[in-house]
Order: sequence, then structure tokens, then C-alpha cells
Amino acid sequence: MDFKTEFKPLTVQPQEIEERSFEMITEELGEHPFTEEQYPVVQRVIHASADFELGRSLVFHRDAITAGIKAIREGRPVVADVQMVQVGISKPRIAKFGGDVRVYISDPDVMEEAKRLNTTRAIISIRKAILEAEGAIYAIGNAPTALLELIRLVKEGAAKPGLIVGVPVGFVSAAESKEELAKLDIPFITNIGRKGGSPVAVATVNAISLMAERLG
Amino acid sequence: MDFKTEFKPLTVQPQEIEERSFEMITEELGEHPFTEEQYPVVQRVIHASADFELGRSLVFHRDAITAGIKAIREGRPVVADVQMVQVGISKPRIAKFGGDVRVYISDPDVMEEAKRLNTTRAIISIRKAILEAEGAIYAIGNAPTALLELIRLVKEGAAKPGLIVGVPVGFVSAAESKEELAKLDIPFITNIGRKGGSPVAVATVNAISLMAERLG
Repeated sequence: MDFKTEFKPLTVQPQEIEERSFEMITEELGEHPFTEEQYPVVQRVIHASADFELGRSLVFHRDAITAGIKAIREGRPVVADVQMVQVGISKPRIAKFGGDVRVYISDPDVMEEAKRLNTTRAIISIRKAILEAEGAIYAIGNAPTALLELIRLVKEGAAKPGLIVGVPVGFVSAAESKEELAKLDIPFITNIGRKGGSPVAVATVNAISLMAERLG
Repeated sequence: MDFKTEFKPLTVQPQEIEERSFEMITEELGEHPFTEEQYPVVQRVIHASADFELGRSLVFHRDAITAGIKAIREGRPVVADVQMVQVGISKPRIAKFGGDVRVYISDPDVMEEAKRLNTTRAIISIRKAILEAEGAIYAIGNAPTALLELIRLVKEGAAKPGLIVGVPVGFVSAAESKEELAKLDIPFITNIGRKGGSPVAVATVNAISLMAERLG
């Protein structure tokens, strides 16, 4: 193709960029309250957001990392709330253990049912997920209504997720949904406040799948 | 399907959630330096990030909004740096004018060429884009190297984008690449500092396509 020869190369090593970024984060973050196993998640979230306040706002259930690694190594699916989260999550490490990364929010039956019930597609996609994705890791970066519905189903005993990564961003219900999540005694990773979003959910799952892979 | 009848409905109006969020943003932001035509972008960026500091850090070339609306109404393509940006951008409003939303970073020829030149796929994807996407809107949320390459090609006269939305996030080169962009006298939207990311690029393009649509 034309673009191959028209311009002279500009050498940049992607691996070096990432390593240097991680060093800067560790240096600037300084003291923090996170455990050694939680820290890779914090580091990747700060890397993805350039936001130390957001990184420091992360909250982990005591079993979160262990449960997340276990779910990935057992080949459980990862359920994303939206497509941006689905495409961002690194697939090969999850596929290696037999898992996949799914998103139900644009499925025709989900869209139809949401319209019929006059509710959000996010809510209906969670109802579909708990029936189709046993023991999944839920990666919720956008939809507080999805997280609230998942919490409700956990409380009712209808959902038993392997791990909930609940980090929706926003002004209406986001912070509140995360406060509710933090009250559950099941494996979760969340953060305090309005901030969050797809890159935070993606960074969290990617950090956990890297840890799962490094166990060999 | 089973999930349709198992649980009772929970009524939440997506449109109401968005409207209430926008009201809260306007109220909390208070005084700001943006023009009436720039404000919808600022509002959507804050909505997507819950970060007023990030919203306030936006910088607009004086022709940015006009040029962005014009590019969309002329059916120019939108080139995303990564898939997360590509999937996040609302397609129907762009397609209505004949445009599409593209991403070249995972094209086999791009991957092969990046390997051969020992450089980033992001850089090579920009070299491909300028040959294939005349007058495009560039939406760069992740890769500073992509933005730096685009700036270099603009300076060389090889690229003539309709609008550059350059908001990469990160610790290495992100802030610097945006400073370079802000020196160009061509239509751009960027922000000051390390923050940015896919949701910021997506929110910016979506705000502009909404304005383009509302012109009728």
C-alpha cells in the first residue's frame, strides 16, 4: 500500500511508553492504602484516566482480586454493560482460559423488551446476563441502572456473579449505585463518587486478567 | 425468552436521566469561558467524565465547531484512533449525511507495517487514514503518537483534516502532543494536561453531530 513507503519511520516503542508511565504513577502516587494484589488495578486505572483522585477512590471487597483471578482461570465469561467496555477488554488472556467477553445491551430481544417495559436496555441486559453467564465477571462502566439491577438480583439470590466491577460514571444514580454495591458482602471493585467510566472498567478487568495469566 | 417475564419492571426513563444530568452540569459549572456553540461539547465531556476540571481544560480553535458541523454535513468520515472511540460514536446522525466512523489501527496491513518499522500501530494507522479519508474528523482519545504523527503530516502539508479532536490521555507525550496541536491554525478541539480519553473524544464528536443534525 501507498502509506507504507511515503513517510519516514518515527521510532516509538509501545512497551517502553507503558513502562515509563507505570514508573511515573508509582512515584507520584506515593503512599497509598492498597494491598500488593490490589495495586496493579489502581495503577492501571490511573494509567487509563491520568486521574490520581479517581485511583485513590477505588474500593475493594477483601476477596475481589482472588475471586476475579479465579473466575478468569475457570473460564467464566466477562459481561460488559456497553460495547465500549467490551471492545476495550483484552481478549486473548481471557480466551486462553476458555472465557469470552460479552455485551447484551444491543441484542434485539433486549431492545424490544426494554421498549415494552418502558425501562433501560441496561436493566434488561443484566436480566439476560444472569440467565446466560453463570459466575461471570460483570464490568459496568456506564449504566448505573445496570448496576442497581444487578445488586437487586444479588440480594434476591437470583444472581451469583464471580466478581462485580461496578464503576459507572455520571450525575444521576452513579455514586448512589456504587455506595449500594460497597454494602454487599460479595466480591466487588468499585469507587467512591461520580467518576468512573468505560476505561476504568476496562483497566480493572485487564489488570486482573494479567494477574491470572502470570500465575502460569 | 425467560428473562422477559421473570422479574417485575423497574421504570427508569433514559431521556430523563440525561436531561437531569445536563441541568446539574450547567448549575454546578456556573461561569465559564466558552461560547454558546462550544458549550454543548463542554457539557457532554463533563457528562461523560463527571470531571469539571477536565471540562474546563478544553481548548477550541475559533473555527472548530463550524468546521466540525460542516464536515459532518458534507458526509466526511470520522477516523477514530482506537476501537473504543469508534464504537462509542453515535452512527445514525453521521450516516444520515453520508459519513461513517472508521478505525484503521487493527487493519492487518497497518499491524504488519508497524512491526516492520518498529513503531506504533497508531502512527501507521494515521498514515493510512490521510490517504483514505479526505477531509475527515479525527477523533483521537488514546494515542499521543497518533496525534503527533497527524500534526507532523499537517505541517508537511500532507494532511488536511476537517477537524482534529485530539484528547489523548496519559503520562508519556499526551499533554505534550496536545500542546503541539493547540499551536496549529487549523480547526481543533483539545484540552490542557494529561487527562482525556475515549469517552472525551466520543462525547465531543457526538455533541458536534447533534448540532449538525439540529440544523435540519
